[in-house]
Amino acid sequence: MFNLCWADEGGLPAGDRGVAYGDGLFETISMRGNRGVLLARHLDRMVRDAGRLGIPVALTDLRKACTAAVNRYADRYTSQQADGSWVLKLTLTRGEGGRGYQPGLGIRPNLMVSASAMPSTPVASGVAADFSRVPLTVNPLLAGIKSLNRLEQVMAAREIEGNLFEVIMSDSAGNLVEGTRTNLLLKTPEGWVTPPAKSLAVAGILRQWMLERLRARGEVVVERTVSIADVMGPHSLGLFLLNSVIGAVPVGVLAGQDLPVDDGLATIFNPFELLE
Amino acid sequence: MFNLCWADEGGLPAGDRGVAYGDGLFETISMRGNRGVLLARHLDRMVRDAGRLGIPVALTDLRKACTAAVNRYADRYTSQQADGSWVLKLTLTRGEGGRGYQPGLGIRPNLMVSASAMPSTPVASGVAADFSRVPLTVNPLLAGIKSLNRLEQVMAAREIEGNLFEVIMSDSAGNLVEGTRTNLLLKTPEGWVTPPAKSLAVAGILRQWMLERLRARGEVVVERTVSIADVMGPHSLGLFLLNSVIGAVPVGVLAGQDLPVDDGLATIFNPFELLE
Repeated sequence: MFNLCWADEGGLPAGDRGVAYGDGLFETISMRGNRGVLLARHLDRMVRDAGRLGIPVALTDLRKACTAAVNRYADRYTSQQADGSWVLKLTLTRGEGGRGYQPGLGIRPNLMVSASAMPSTPVASGVAADFSRVPLTVNPLLAGIKSLNRLEQVMAAREIEGNLFEVIMSDSAGNLVEGTRTNLLLKTPEGWVTPPAKSLAVAGILRQWMLERLRARGEVVVERTVSIADVMGPHSLGLFLLNSVIGAVPVGVLAGQDLPVDDGLATIFNPFELLE
Repeated sequence: MFNLCWADEGGLPAGDRGVAYGDGLFETISMRGNRGVLLARHLDRMVRDAGRLGIPVALTDLRKACTAAVNRYADRYTSQQADGSWVLKLTLTRGEGGRGYQPGLGIRPNLMVSASAMPSTPVASGVAADFSRVPLTVNPLLAGIKSLNRLEQVMAAREIEGNLFEVIMSDSAGNLVEGTRTNLLLKTPEGWVTPPAKSLAVAGILRQWMLERLRARGEVVVERTVSIADVMGPHSLGLFLLNSVIGAVPVGVLAGQDLPVDDGLATIFNPFELLE
C-alpha cells in the first residue's frame, strides 16, 4: 500500500525519490463529473508499468484513491465546465529512502493525487505541427512507460510557439516516433500506420484503444516505423495526434506543408461513451 | 533569482516541474565543515548546464544559497564525523507553471537545499563491480547534465547487491560508458583512457578535475570509447571509479575477474587540499 499525498496538502515529501530522480510514473485521466474516460486502462497501465519499475502497487488501492479524489475534487471542477470535464493526475513514486540511486528494500511508495481544469479543445479542422529538433532516445527497458523522466519532452515542448499545437520527435535514424504529448496515427492506402510500441517513449492509452477499435471494425492497422516521406508524401491520407485527454486531433499543416485532413477518427472516439 | 526551498521545511511545491517531469538538475557536494570540495566547479557546472536546459540562474545567487546552507547545516553534521565531513545537495528546478511539458515564459526556478551524512568510505584495496544489464541511453542534447532524469541509473543500481560497490553501464554498441554514480578512468600502457564527455549521461566533476590534473603532470590522457576488452584484457593496468563525494576508487574485481589494482590515483586526489 502507498502513502496518499494530496497535492493541495503539500504533495510529495522533500526526500521522495520521484523528486530526486524521476523514480516513478504518472497517469493523466480525462474526467466527466465523477467518472473517468478509459479509467480502467489508465489504472491497469500504471499497475503494469510500476511492476516493470519494481514499484509495488495494487489496482484495488489505486481505485480507492480515485474514489477519494473524486469525492475531494469533482464538485469543485465540474462546476467550471458545461460538460463537467476536469483532469485527474496520479503520480506514483518509489517513495523515500535508499542510498542514492539504490532504492533498498521495503520502501513504501507515495501516490500524489492532483486535479486541474480541462485544457481547451483544439480545432477539429486540423492543427499545425512541426518537427522537433530534440532527438528522442528511448531506453528499451523503459520504452512506453509514462515515467517521471520527461526532460526530452520538456525540451521539445519549448519549441512549441505561435499557433503550433505540437512538435514531432524523431529517433536517431530520422524516423518519426511521437509528439511531446501525443502518439502518431497515419492514414495510408495500405491502412492505418503507427510506430511500434517498443519504439515509443510513452505508449498512450488512446493509441492502444484506437488500434483495437480500428481492428475490431475490420480496418488494417500496421505497427511499423514511420518516415517523414510517409507523412509528407503522396500516400499520406491524414495524420492524427492521439492523447487520451485531448482526443484524436488531425494535423492540417506540418512544417508549413498542408496535409490532407480526414475527420473520420473524431467520430470514432467519443469520450462520453467511454466513462467508467 | 530562484525561490529557496529548504528540504527540512517541506521541500519543493507539489506543482514543481522537477517533481512532475524531472525538469531540473542537481549537485552533490562533499563538505568539510563550512567548506566544500571543488565547490566552484560544482556551482559552475550547475550554472552552465542550467543554461543548456534554459533555466536561468546566477552564480552569485547559488553562492549565497551555499553560505545559507552552511550556516544552517554545518554545525549539525560536522559534529557527526571526526573529519567534519557531510554532504550538501542542491536541486535546481525550472519551477512551477506552464501547460504540461511546455514551460511557458518567466517561470521562477526553485532551489531545494538539503544536507545528509557522509557515506562510508570504500576499501582502498579495491572494490567489486559488475556489468549492468540496463542499457544506457544518452540524448546528445542532454549529455553530461546531472539532470533529475535518473531512472536508468536507479534501475541499474537495483542490480547492486551483496558486496558489489557499483555496476557499469554500456551503450547500445556494447562500450562501457559509466557506473550508476561514477565515471570510468582506465590505466593502460598508452596512458589514461576515459569515455568522451559527449557519450556520458553525467560528466562528473572529479573526472574533469582528474583529467586536468593528470595532464598537468605530463601524463597522457585519451578520451575515447572503452570496450570490455580494454578493461578485462592484458593491457588493463587498473580501472578507477570516480565520484566527487566518494573519491577515486580502484576496482579489484570486475564481473568475478580480478583486475590489477593501482593505488596511484588515491594519492593525487586529496579532498582536504581542494576545499573552497
